[in-house]
Amino acid sequence: ARTGDPEVVYGEGKTPDQVVTALRALHRAHPGHPVLATRLSAETIDACRESLPAAEIDPVGRTAMLGHGPMRGRVAIVGAGTSDLPVVREAATTVRAFGAEPDEIVDVGVAGLHRLLAQRDRIAGADVVIAVAGMEAALPSVLGGLVGTPLIAVPTSVGYGWHLGGLTAWLAMLNSCAPGVLSVNVDNGFGAAVAAARIARTVADARRTDR
Amino acid sequence: ARTGDPEVVYGEGKTPDQVVTALRALHRAHPGHPVLATRLSAETIDACRESLPAAEIDPVGRTAMLGHGPMRGRVAIVGAGTSDLPVVREAATTVRAFGAEPDEIVDVGVAGLHRLLAQRDRIAGADVVIAVAGMEAALPSVLGGLVGTPLIAVPTSVGYGWHLGGLTAWLAMLNSCAPGVLSVNVDNGFGAAVAAARIARTVADARRTDR
Amino acid sequence: ARTGDPEVVYGEGKTPDQVVTALRALHRAHPGHPVLATRLSAETIDACRESLPAAEIDPVGRTAMLGHGPMRGRVAIVGAGTSDLPVVREAATTVRAFGAEPDEIVDVGVAGLHRLLAQRDRIAGADVVIAVAGMEAALPSVLGGLVGTPLIAVPTSVGYGWHLGGLTAWLAMLNSCAPGVLSVNVDNGFGAAVAAARIARTVADARRTDR
Amino acid sequence: ARTGDPEVVYGEGKTPDQVVTALRALHRAHPGHPVLATRLSAETIDACRESLPAAEIDPVGRTAMLGHGPMRGRVAIVGAGTSDLPVVREAATTVRAFGAEPDEIVDVGVAGLHRLLAQRDRIAGADVVIAVAGMEAALPSVLGGLVGTPLIAVPTSVGYGWHLGGLTAWLAMLNSCAPGVLSVNVDNGFGAAVAAARIARTVADARRTDR
Amino acid sequence: ARTGDPEVVYGEGKTPDQVVTALRALHRAHPGHPVLATRLSAETIDACRESLPAAEIDPVGRTAMLGHGPMRGRVAIVGAGTSDLPVVREAATTVRAFGAEPDEIVDVGVAGLHRLLAQRDRIAGADVVIAVAGMEAALPSVLGGLVGTPLIAVPTSVGYGWHLGGLTAWLAMLNSCAPGVLSVNVDNGFGAAVAAARIARTVADARRTDR
Amino acid sequence: ARTGDPEVVYGEGKTPDQVVTALRALHRAHPGHPVLATRLSAETIDACRESLPAAEIDPVGRTAMLGHGPMRGRVAIVGAGTSDLPVVREAATTVRAFGAEPDEIVDVGVAGLHRLLAQRDRIAGADVVIAVAGMEAALPSVLGGLVGTPLIAVPTSVGYGWHLGGLTAWLAMLNSCAPGVLSVNVDNGFGAAVAAARIARTVADARRTDR
Amino acid sequence: ARTGDPEVVYGEGKTPDQVVTALRALHRAHPGHPVLATRLSAETIDACRESLPAAEIDPVGRTAMLGHGPMRGRVAIVGAGTSDLPVVREAATTVRAFGAEPDEIVDVGVAGLHRLLAQRDRIAGADVVIAVAGMEAALPSVLGGLVGTPLIAVPTSVGYGWHLGGLTAWLAMLNSCAPGVLSVNVDNGFGAAVAAARIARTVADARRTDR
Amino acid sequence: ARTGDPEVVYGEGKTPDQVVTALRALHRAHPGHPVLATRLSAETIDACRESLPAAEIDPVGRTAMLGHGPMRGRVAIVGAGTSDLPVVREAATTVRAFGAEPDEIVDVGVAGLHRLLAQRDRIAGADVVIAVAGMEAALPSVLGGLVGTPLIAVPTSVGYGWHLGGLTAWLAMLNSCAPGVLSVNVDNGFGAAVAAARIARTVADARRTDR
Ligand SMILES: Nc1ncnc2c1ncn2[C@@H]1O[C@H](COP(=O)(O)O)[C@@H](O)[C@H]1O
Ligand SMILES: Nc1ncnc2c1ncn2[C@@H]1O[C@H](COP(=O)(O)O)[C@@H](O)[C@H]1O
Ligand SMILES: Nc1ncnc2c1ncn2[C@@H]1O[C@H](COP(=O)(O)O)[C@@H](O)[C@H]1O
Ligand SMILES: Nc1ncnc2c1ncn2[C@@H]1O[C@H](COP(=O)(O)O)[C@@H](O)[C@H]1O
Ligand SMILES: [Mg+2]
Ligand SMILES: [Mg+2]
Ligand SMILES: [Mg+2]
Ligand SMILES: [Mg+2]
Ligand SMILES: [Mg+2]
Ligand SMILES: [Mg+2]
Ligand SMILES: [Mg+2]
Ligand SMILES: [Mg+2]
Repeated sequence: ARTGDPEVVYGEGKTPDQVVTALRALHRAHPGHPVLATRLSAETIDACRESLPAAEIDPVGRTAMLGHGPMRGRVAIVGAGTSDLPVVREAATTVRAFGAEPDEIVDVGVAGLHRLLAQRDRIAGADVVIAVAGMEAALPSVLGGLVGTPLIAVPTSVGYGWHLGGLTAWLAMLNSCAPGVLSVNVDNGFGAAVAAARIARTVADARRTDR
Repeated sequence: ARTGDPEVVYGEGKTPDQVVTALRALHRAHPGHPVLATRLSAETIDACRESLPAAEIDPVGRTAMLGHGPMRGRVAIVGAGTSDLPVVREAATTVRAFGAEPDEIVDVGVAGLHRLLAQRDRIAGADVVIAVAGMEAALPSVLGGLVGTPLIAVPTSVGYGWHLGGLTAWLAMLNSCAPGVLSVNVDNGFGAAVAAARIARTVADARRTDR
Repeated sequence: ARTGDPEVVYGEGKTPDQVVTALRALHRAHPGHPVLATRLSAETIDACRESLPAAEIDPVGRTAMLGHGPMRGRVAIVGAGTSDLPVVREAATTVRAFGAEPDEIVDVGVAGLHRLLAQRDRIAGADVVIAVAGMEAALPSVLGGLVGTPLIAVPTSVGYGWHLGGLTAWLAMLNSCAPGVLSVNVDNGFGAAVAAARIARTVADARRTDR
Repeated sequence: ARTGDPEVVYGEGKTPDQVVTALRALHRAHPGHPVLATRLSAETIDACRESLPAAEIDPVGRTAMLGHGPMRGRVAIVGAGTSDLPVVREAATTVRAFGAEPDEIVDVGVAGLHRLLAQRDRIAGADVVIAVAGMEAALPSVLGGLVGTPLIAVPTSVGYGWHLGGLTAWLAMLNSCAPGVLSVNVDNGFGAAVAAARIARTVADARRTDR
Repeated sequence: ARTGDPEVVYGEGKTPDQVVTALRALHRAHPGHPVLATRLSAETIDACRESLPAAEIDPVGRTAMLGHGPMRGRVAIVGAGTSDLPVVREAATTVRAFGAEPDEIVDVGVAGLHRLLAQRDRIAGADVVIAVAGMEAALPSVLGGLVGTPLIAVPTSVGYGWHLGGLTAWLAMLNSCAPGVLSVNVDNGFGAAVAAARIARTVADARRTDR
Repeated sequence: ARTGDPEVVYGEGKTPDQVVTALRALHRAHPGHPVLATRLSAETIDACRESLPAAEIDPVGRTAMLGHGPMRGRVAIVGAGTSDLPVVREAATTVRAFGAEPDEIVDVGVAGLHRLLAQRDRIAGADVVIAVAGMEAALPSVLGGLVGTPLIAVPTSVGYGWHLGGLTAWLAMLNSCAPGVLSVNVDNGFGAAVAAARIARTVADARRTDR
Repeated sequence: ARTGDPEVVYGEGKTPDQVVTALRALHRAHPGHPVLATRLSAETIDACRESLPAAEIDPVGRTAMLGHGPMRGRVAIVGAGTSDLPVVREAATTVRAFGAEPDEIVDVGVAGLHRLLAQRDRIAGADVVIAVAGMEAALPSVLGGLVGTPLIAVPTSVGYGWHLGGLTAWLAMLNSCAPGVLSVNVDNGFGAAVAAARIARTVADARRTDR
Repeated sequence: ARTGDPEVVYGEGKTPDQVVTALRALHRAHPGHPVLATRLSAETIDACRESLPAAEIDPVGRTAMLGHGPMRGRVAIVGAGTSDLPVVREAATTVRAFGAEPDEIVDVGVAGLHRLLAQRDRIAGADVVIAVAGMEAALPSVLGGLVGTPLIAVPTSVGYGWHLGGLTAWLAMLNSCAPGVLSVNVDNGFGAAVAAARIARTVADARRTDR
């Protein structure tokens, strides 16, 4: 893996055994930096708990992590609704594994505007913002009007009716009326976090290096 | 036409002559109530100005109207951006033709939240709200969280990039996280106004009748 | 929740325990007004029956309701076929929870026109009409020609062949040849009912208030 | 061409000269039976009028026909709105060219049900029915419930808003709740007429032959 | 049901008990004509075998039929591959239930042209032809060039790769280069058979009546 | 360009001057082998005729070619209808420019099967076959059953009704029931010819080399 | 089957018994050449192992093969990621069954360019190249720039997020910026291999024959 | 506008006069910082040249700019083909207007890998990379494997055949096999540049501030 990036195991379609073995081997090979596994099934979560007592496990974000490094720069991860939580969490753990500090701010969807406005300064103070939202995905546009920070939107496959597996949210984010909104694939908290952590690290390193 | 509803001429695909003739004939046949023409080309607008001096003409909303009746109930028509203006105007004239009072509130898109919040009470005081927005169409969801009034969303085919002729806005409105948002077809200010005016009229009539 | 609106629990993706606990807590916190749960699984329906004897439970519409308030205004809920019944029922219970009186008229699809025509006066007398139909969803267009009442169309994911999960019905409703037809997302009986009840309540309140 | 079928020239993408020449040549080669040209541009219509005085020309249906044969069997061609007229006309001329008698019944869309019901017996008495409709295309379903005659539906690319070039009407017809509705491609009045005329001819021939 | 048409129970989403009860009741109420049930699950097939010994059951076409009437006119049902067999069979039983005689000709797809050409006369001799094919659905176009009989195409959801649940076949059939091909929804052997039987019956009745 | 491949100028979006200049420059730089320009507008065709008297120009295939080399191997280019001719021609010239011999066989669509069968041996004798067809694109499947030669299918954007700019033909070709059919993008006669010529050249070279 | 081609059983939707019986019967009937079964379920794989000890079985590619013939010509099968392996393997076995020699080169996706560049000569030396890739499917374009060999692209339904069951990869391959890339349906390793083997065989035969 | 961001005029749908007037007014109101106009028609470009001699005008990128500020941080803008140039240029001017330094590297598409590899160090040295590509859009994935810099992908509506107005490129970018690729809407060079400039500025400011 690139300097500063962890080793990553993609859990989808892998057996519990395969994931545990991969994590153990990578951790041994790279003792100095974190090893992350994502998209773990319930069975794999259990297997990790039993066989890798040192691992930090998040059953909501479906991740496991072994080891960790320093965290430079802060990434605000803003989630619209409670159903977006798994994606928020996958992003948060990934941000940490990639060397930045996550700050989760959830349940601040646009239909309850006051809750979002109450968090404005906390969000504006981060180095990068990740906005996670499903349905009509209005959150990034509203955020884009409130803060000037680099902003990455993650559409989620959340919704009550016909939402085409998240396509609706995805199209909304690509058509944001706030200029400069960047986006990733549906539910791809991992991808957004990789990009966000790299930007936050770079900014933080620039601050530190030049001191 | 149904009691309280005007006669309507749909201008698309009709020659200036056909529209002028139809308006004149309908006005003569129904002297007591309004006659409305929509989706007029620039040529037809000119022809109406010349041949129908009594007509009220709106080149932005592309409508012409002859005669008018009483207006009962108020319909707030809220537009996100300046490009949504033609649809806002088509809706406003249609609301009047169908017997209710339109109240246009424009350029209050969600990327500039303070302008929208400044109009909150004015919007909340209407009998029905029409929200007109293109791109990611976040406006109805934000409005749905701010006011409890019946809310009709009109997606518009406005946008910078790949917005599929308004599909993006349309999908967003159907997936609004605010419950009870109703919607019509892309750019269909006419349809939204017909429904809104009927509701506003009914409410106003109920107020008056029972007095 | 807004004045006149109940507390609502969305059951999809929640365990029976979570739903029962939420209903109980909300009922205690808001003793004066109704508490509604929708999209309940068979297991949750059973759990509600056992643990919440005071609840009104509808296994077809998949809802549970605790407490209720006064009903002002009448909403006709017209269903095309027997397969549309779950959506009709979800709408009916939601209308009641939001303070209006539902009137269910089912199995009046357009392929058997006489059954629909026989109910014309009953439908025209309501304050708002909800039309529920799947397949080619012709019902709202025919109704729009028969009555002048505000009309909300709910497309359903019902059909024999390739109907794209209700897209067909949805597109049909948005292209209705009857002007002023409003619509919501596929199978979204809840959303249609929220809007309908608010309109019916407003009309009824206007009648009463001014007396 | 098959016995009983005319020679046909498809006008789309052909110059006026090419169409006139083709019609003349085919008419000379097959003096005994009709020669039909469809999808003619305005220029080609003019050229046909000038150069082929014997031709029957329909500028609305955009067809020209030379010669004709006997007509056996009756095909009712039912059109929903005035905008569907070009397709109704293309179908009518084609029915004649293929040896059956067309009976045009227009402006009987479902939003004005009484006009359709008034024509019921005339429609039911035909050997085959072609139903032409755009927008939500409810007409074939209503007809399918009213008559037992073989029924062919033609979706048209007619509509006010986002109708996807007729896809909406097409999907509606394929999902008709009336069983046994057959359909052809969007605006394909020609194809529907070919099939209808063959069926009507067969039925009429069976009647006559066995006498 | 219309004269000559049977009573039909649509089995999808019904329990074995519901289907058996419905068949029995309809058979008792209409002793003189056939009663048909389609889209039966394996469990319902077993229940019918046990409880309705007089029923004719087809586990491939997933149908059950009680009673039958006279058969007038012949419908050739031509199937491209063995995977299309369930749709061929559903059509065959439905044709019989609706009073015409089915003639099944299977495994004559266009990639093995000689097998199809060998059946040409048998197909051309029918009153109506139903062509059942999946994948690229070339069969109706080839048939349309070989015979002049009325031709109804049924696309099937059969295929090796990405075929969009039959959309590919459906689009192919609507774009057939043979004029006059009519079509129904994907896998809708029932709908094709209803139309085919009505046409075949009409032709046969014409032959007989006039004698 | 790779050995054996010509220099190519893509004419779309280029002015007549740009194309003429590019052809001249490339011809001078590579005197030993052919230079090809495709997708030429009518104006560019005229400019080439005037300024490049040595060029071979095809106004139907919209190509111009300067110089040529030896031709090894034969590519049969089979076209379904006359509207497919431009694509057939673009392919034929490209095959020659890429060093193989084209053999055009046109108007052999599947609705007139005897014309196709009459050419069977000529097609089977080629080293590679390109099948060009629009609409339901049945030609490659029928050919795939008739000959064992490598077969490349080119869908064309030809059709009467709703064919989605060739999508229909494209989907059909990808779902061919004849195994081993390869395909390229809609109307891409160029791409099919590049691949076909390389295969034909390789085969011919193998024959020759080893002699 | 055509000369040089094996007998093939398509396993999808067949029971273990049906597959075993079919393989045995075909092997007996055609002792001289290979018999191949594809798309086998885990149960059918087990049944083949038990009942057909002579069969070569590949549980990853989900194939079974009985007998084999000579191999002429080499087909490089290049896979982007480990998840593409099942399609690579299906292709490899099919290439062998159709009489050519497969050469598998895997895990050389474009995000790790050096691994791909290291295999350049091995790939360029083959008679045909099959490129198997999912997600954004960049592999064929990069390969098309590196080698001049005939190139067949197989899109796979592999990906982390919203990839539409492989549509993304498929569209990418059809829009490759490298001219002459041919493609087959999603996951259709079989189809690509049939075409590749026929080309490779032809080239090899040409070499040999002429000696 | 936000601190550091310029005033922007979106030229699409505006008359030359409107654009010139807006630029002049904004420049007067904000003398200290740049004013940018994008998506200008040829007529507007001419009007700007005549009326605003101080403006920097780019007819390829279709932009005009008045005034400029300091540039902090470098943004590499990498373009695949010459047809992608307009988007590259729009991005470059926007980057400058938003206060960062653009570095254009064009014609380095993946089908000519050596040209791209030759620019690797120059690209890797930038603070942010924008990758602009149409067709199959493989460039960002290859770049993502070569450099660790934050990477923003812009799909373009460039292509030879059926590319769905850039959808193909867009889908490819969202499915990139290189983790952390961010993307914007089709042809949205402006949006990518806004985000890139903000990130580059932040990094550069961090370097400087802390010194
Ligand atoms: N949740 C995720 N979403 C998308 N990509 C992921 C995710 N987790 C891991 N990856 C990618 O998958 C690669 C590892 O895949 P594998 O070698 O199959 O375990 C990593 O290098 C990441 O780029
Ligand atoms: N802007 C509009 N959008 C949608 N429908 C309209 C519009 N204007 C008029 N209509 C409908 O078109 C009908 C008149 O059509 P016509 O008879 O063709 O002029 C009216 O009764 C309305 O229902
Ligand atoms: N296989 C089928 N495909 C499409 N429609 C069917 C099918 N079988 C029955 N139907 C229709 O379904 C109706 C009966 O539905 P139900 O009352 O729900 O049993 C019949 O009148 C038919 O019109
Ligand atoms: N008709 C065509 N269809 C698709 N690609 C083409 C066509 N003609 C030329 N090309 C490609 O376009 C390239 C030349 O593009 P350009 O440099 O813009 O003239 C050639 O190398 C071919 O790969
Ligand atoms: Mg949301
Ligand atoms: Mg907007
Ligand atoms: Mg219905
Ligand atoms: Mg209609
Ligand atoms: Mg087939
Ligand atoms: Mg064709
Ligand atoms: Mg890949
Ligand atoms: Mg590109």
